Amino acid sequence: MSGTIRAAIVGSTGYGGVELIRLLLQHPKVRITSVISSSAAGQLYTDGYPHLTEIITDRLDAVDPELVASKADVVFLATPHGVSAATAPKFLEAGLKVIDLSGDFRLQDGSVYEKYYKHAPADPSYVKKAVYGLAEVFGADVNGASFVANPGCYPTSAALGLVPLVQAGWIDLDSIIIDAKSGVSGAGRGMSLTTHFSEVNENFFAYKINKHQHTPEIEQTLSRVAGRPVTLTFTPHLVPMTRGILSTIYAKLENGRTEAEVHELYRQYYEGRRFVRVRPLGKFPATKEVAGSNYCDIGLSVDARTGRITILSAIDNLVKGAAGQAVQNLNLMMGWDEAEGLAFTPVYP
Amino acid sequence: MSGTIRAAIVGSTGYGGVELIRLLLQHPKVRITSVISSSAAGQLYTDGYPHLTEIITDRLDAVDPELVASKADVVFLATPHGVSAATAPKFLEAGLKVIDLSGDFRLQDGSVYEKYYKHAPADPSYVKKAVYGLAEVFGADVNGASFVANPGCYPTSAALGLVPLVQAGWIDLDSIIIDAKSGVSGAGRGMSLTTHFSEVNENFFAYKINKHQHTPEIEQTLSRVAGRPVTLTFTPHLVPMTRGILSTIYAKLENGRTEAEVHELYRQYYEGRRFVRVRPLGKFPATKEVAGSNYCDIGLSVDARTGRITILSAIDNLVKGAAGQAVQNLNLMMGWDEAEGLAFTPVYP
Amino acid sequence: MSGTIRAAIVGSTGYGGVELIRLLLQHPKVRITSVISSSAAGQLYTDGYPHLTEIITDRLDAVDPELVASKADVVFLATPHGVSAATAPKFLEAGLKVIDLSGDFRLQDGSVYEKYYKHAPADPSYVKKAVYGLAEVFGADVNGASFVANPGCYPTSAALGLVPLVQAGWIDLDSIIIDAKSGVSGAGRGMSLTTHFSEVNENFFAYKINKHQHTPEIEQTLSRVAGRPVTLTFTPHLVPMTRGILSTIYAKLENGRTEAEVHELYRQYYEGRRFVRVRPLGKFPATKEVAGSNYCDIGLSVDARTGRITILSAIDNLVKGAAGQAVQNLNLMMGWDEAEGLAFTPVYP
Amino acid sequence: MSGTIRAAIVGSTGYGGVELIRLLLQHPKVRITSVISSSAAGQLYTDGYPHLTEIITDRLDAVDPELVASKADVVFLATPHGVSAATAPKFLEAGLKVIDLSGDFRLQDGSVYEKYYKHAPADPSYVKKAVYGLAEVFGADVNGASFVANPGCYPTSAALGLVPLVQAGWIDLDSIIIDAKSGVSGAGRGMSLTTHFSEVNENFFAYKINKHQHTPEIEQTLSRVAGRPVTLTFTPHLVPMTRGILSTIYAKLENGRTEAEVHELYRQYYEGRRFVRVRPLGKFPATKEVAGSNYCDIGLSVDARTGRITILSAIDNLVKGAAGQAVQNLNLMMGWDEAEGLAFTPVYP
Repeated sequence: MSGTIRAAIVGSTGYGGVELIRLLLQHPKVRITSVISSSAAGQLYTDGYPHLTEIITDRLDAVDPELVASKADVVFLATPHGVSAATAPKFLEAGLKVIDLSGDFRLQDGSVYEKYYKHAPADPSYVKKAVYGLAEVFGADVNGASFVANPGCYPTSAALGLVPLVQAGWIDLDSIIIDAKSGVSGAGRGMSLTTHFSEVNENFFAYKINKHQHTPEIEQTLSRVAGRPVTLTFTPHLVPMTRGILSTIYAKLENGRTEAEVHELYRQYYEGRRFVRVRPLGKFPATKEVAGSNYCDIGLSVDARTGRITILSAIDNLVKGAAGQAVQNLNLMMGWDEAEGLAFTPVYP
Repeated sequence: MSGTIRAAIVGSTGYGGVELIRLLLQHPKVRITSVISSSAAGQLYTDGYPHLTEIITDRLDAVDPELVASKADVVFLATPHGVSAATAPKFLEAGLKVIDLSGDFRLQDGSVYEKYYKHAPADPSYVKKAVYGLAEVFGADVNGASFVANPGCYPTSAALGLVPLVQAGWIDLDSIIIDAKSGVSGAGRGMSLTTHFSEVNENFFAYKINKHQHTPEIEQTLSRVAGRPVTLTFTPHLVPMTRGILSTIYAKLENGRTEAEVHELYRQYYEGRRFVRVRPLGKFPATKEVAGSNYCDIGLSVDARTGRITILSAIDNLVKGAAGQAVQNLNLMMGWDEAEGLAFTPVYP
Repeated sequence: MSGTIRAAIVGSTGYGGVELIRLLLQHPKVRITSVISSSAAGQLYTDGYPHLTEIITDRLDAVDPELVASKADVVFLATPHGVSAATAPKFLEAGLKVIDLSGDFRLQDGSVYEKYYKHAPADPSYVKKAVYGLAEVFGADVNGASFVANPGCYPTSAALGLVPLVQAGWIDLDSIIIDAKSGVSGAGRGMSLTTHFSEVNENFFAYKINKHQHTPEIEQTLSRVAGRPVTLTFTPHLVPMTRGILSTIYAKLENGRTEAEVHELYRQYYEGRRFVRVRPLGKFPATKEVAGSNYCDIGLSVDARTGRITILSAIDNLVKGAAGQAVQNLNLMMGWDEAEGLAFTPVYP
Repeated sequence: MSGTIRAAIVGSTGYGGVELIRLLLQHPKVRITSVISSSAAGQLYTDGYPHLTEIITDRLDAVDPELVASKADVVFLATPHGVSAATAPKFLEAGLKVIDLSGDFRLQDGSVYEKYYKHAPADPSYVKKAVYGLAEVFGADVNGASFVANPGCYPTSAALGLVPLVQAGWIDLDSIIIDAKSGVSGAGRGMSLTTHFSEVNENFFAYKINKHQHTPEIEQTLSRVAGRPVTLTFTPHLVPMTRGILSTIYAKLENGRTEAEVHELYRQYYEGRRFVRVRPLGKFPATKEVAGSNYCDIGLSVDARTGRITILSAIDNLVKGAAGQAVQNLNLMMGWDEAEGLAFTPVYP
């Protein structure tokens, strides 16, 4: 079919993978030609996901770069951390465009990767080739790229909430605190007590306090924007819901900037960016208001009593925080409109 | 725009209305030209639904048939029961096509309507004109129609689960029991203790036992299919979730029909019907597997010990049970493919 | 301490076990002297259940009947099905009173056990010794007994909802359908996709249709009460909540019995039984109204149109459906007031 | 009954009131002699709360201080803000002990009350008489008192998490940020979109950003402990669950204090206080681990990279955050053990 490209999805049986399928099936310029799983190769895709009955009739392919290269133009890697470090180079060598949804190629410093991920880091020459696909901030790098490291869910929400202020130099960079809350789908389909319904339902708690692997990813982005090292506090929490991330971000505002000035700064920064909606002053986003969509919604408030700004940033962790941003990056890589195939509304309620 | 029609939505601030907006925004042949509310006319639509920020920038229109007729070709009435009885005739007289999502034009017998709905019934001459839009069963009537009574949520799920067996005459018509369970969005956006989070969450209960207004609607459909009066038991329950209906249906199977025969009967009945998925024997649908989509998924099991069949029928109450079926009916009224604008997958998880 | 007995709990790290601990800690006549686990022996109990920090400071004991007999007078077996078949006899031989919360000693017919549980049945001589502890129906048997098979959660809810009518002979015994709905804690703390939060939340589905192991247990109870074999339909469903079971029960009423007569029958049958609350006519129980308590609440409605009765029966599956009824049985075994230590209210909301 | 006192509850039909009933029914030294409601006087209590069927058979009394004084020794005011300002003095004049669960007598500065509560402040002479009942901090004041202002839910969680550090002077008092998350029952039984199930379920959002009325209450407590004014940032969020508050608290640690030192500080501060459980280093509380109980569980972590401490503080908002702490205060007022009637475990799961 002229004008369309063929896509393969590795790790297609995880939540990131199945969300990619939902989005790509609606994309007018993409055809899914291979759904791939190392653990379930040969099985019907719908054995694990009967909601796609009569929609996806394929069996799962094994992970085989040659085979994939014969069937697809682009491959999405929606595998657990530590897998694509080894496989992404093979897919690239086979001539495929690669979008990696794992954390393996996001951190430039391998020793930091190793400290937080407890895996050996990827080959530095490939890390260098990977473009960090935070589309609204580094979109220019993504245009025409062949290899994109898709940002993490928390880092997307946090960075989009902070970048305008950091770039403008209006906050004390040592004062940043990100208190983030995520739905349970962020933990994937794997089983553990922290994804067990009876343990999570009617419960709220923080985890990986002061040691979550998204901390250095957020710091790397803000340091790059600031032009100097940024160290911050990041606390993730689990919310008894399936989808959604809300980051509540705190920082000391400098030079007496007013709420109106900051709001205007955000409005201008995101002008023309389809997927970031800066809410009017006095209004704040809820995760349900972006559910199922690729939006990142931002609201902010300045407290004159403390000189502190509070920023609220909401995304659907599986869309803007994973599969949706990956499709947005594909659009940029191909030179298409960034909203191609992504222009649908949130599902509410 | 050639090839497109203009749509207005009355009662657009309810859950049926906002779901119509989500679906029609994705429909390639429809443009929404008026969002209407009797209670909030003049306000921005997004004041009540900020998830549509930057998507719907319109203010709400008042209910004015002349105005609507000047702006639209078709009007969806997503108003509470008892409202469209009075307004639908006016919209029809003004030359609009009308799709009524309320219960006002579904029941042919006004006295039954009055008994269950506690409202005066609509003018019988208009009731006669209204085509009951259960697309997979009475779709032929809908083709080219101007006035459709869109089925209720429970009746859609229940009737699609029973019609093949009733039409085939394979069950004891006096043995039908429908034990139905719905998410809370079915109760609308109005406030009451039965939609109060702290009352409904971690709770499960039945309501309107032996007196729910959908009982006669289901009986009317099955009686029409059977060619004789059908009386049945229907019990609705509230599930602590937002979307979804599962009907568990019981009946006595006659003449020793086997599970395989019944399964084949369903397969054939729904052959070519895009939105009904008959699951393989041994598999049963879950509401999450149809969430956000227009599918009705059906599974069945025959128990040789009791001679009884158990049928499971799952829909998203706001889509196939309301707005999605209304769009499907619009497609049939216009002579379009019934799946036009509705060919998206469930949102999972 | 004079007047108290010492209790041990095998399988104390499951949900049945931890609920026994909650209840026994409040019981004025019982002291917990050993918490036992085959898989976690030696660990601190609070490693797995930090909500008991500073309350339970014990380490888990291994399963050792001699040791248990030296420390306790009664042992609760809250182990998975198939375990107590082997261990209960040993505890009995060691001189302990035994209350088995598993299904291993409930079914008198070993072949039926084997068919539904897929385990070898227990030694028939011990099965014969086990008293089936449905306290409100067979409580006389439990008085002074040494070995009690504690009823299953669904069977408790279903049988209490049906026994008065079955005993009175007022329903068609071939017409019974039990449509039951349970919170997720009924599936235990083990991990599987059906206890995975993102799969279960915002979802509703039936499982083990026409083959759940509680079917023969309910049939056995009703057959015993009826004095003839009863075969029925039982369908369990999973509700996205942690605790609670609601059974919606249908049957054909015979001889034109009225709603008022049936209600009076229930009122009289449960007169003086502290834990069954027959609701006034027109009122129906919700699971939240019994949460955390040992109540079974019952409501009923007769439909003159169909001649059918609908009975609603609600319990907390972990209390009246497991640990609470076990304590109630202990009270009867010891000759104490059946409500000893159980006289607390539901937790609402 | 010798040794018991008689209690009345005004506002007994709200969630604070019904939780007081649950707790007082278990209290060995208290008898409930009047349940009171201004809006539902004359109705059966169980009309609104059928979970208390056969337990509370009383009708609701009207608000009448003379009548109450004739029937009770102590009155709990669980009324909305703005009500007890007028009624508490009348009950006091009538000779009753008064425990006010509303915000009307918590803030010493009437102008601050008026700014945040939008009500006229209470008579300052009565405000002065009211003892602020944060039992673990100001318990000495409560001993023998006649009039207690029971702390708010968020302030209890936040203050217990901060007081040891503030008293020790180990943190920068200008650096305090409290990011708090509450279950929906905190919003009461009143109806609004923010308690509507379909709006709140699968949703997470902040509210009253930089203007919640609990901000000055927390500041007042910390200022009193610090001996100088404390200004801080407080952000409340709504969690899609019924019960529970988790406060995530951030502050700059001064003078290079280590995690071990801070942990020891907390351990010592709460030594002997039955209802505060300081978790071992590396462990953090979840709201479900205190559900239904009067515990406040605290965990903490120091990040050497930022010099910041993160404190997690969890309570059940209806127990330690309202009714439970009120009973604890009653115990102190009467000179009883503070745990009298409150020594039960959390309900888990």
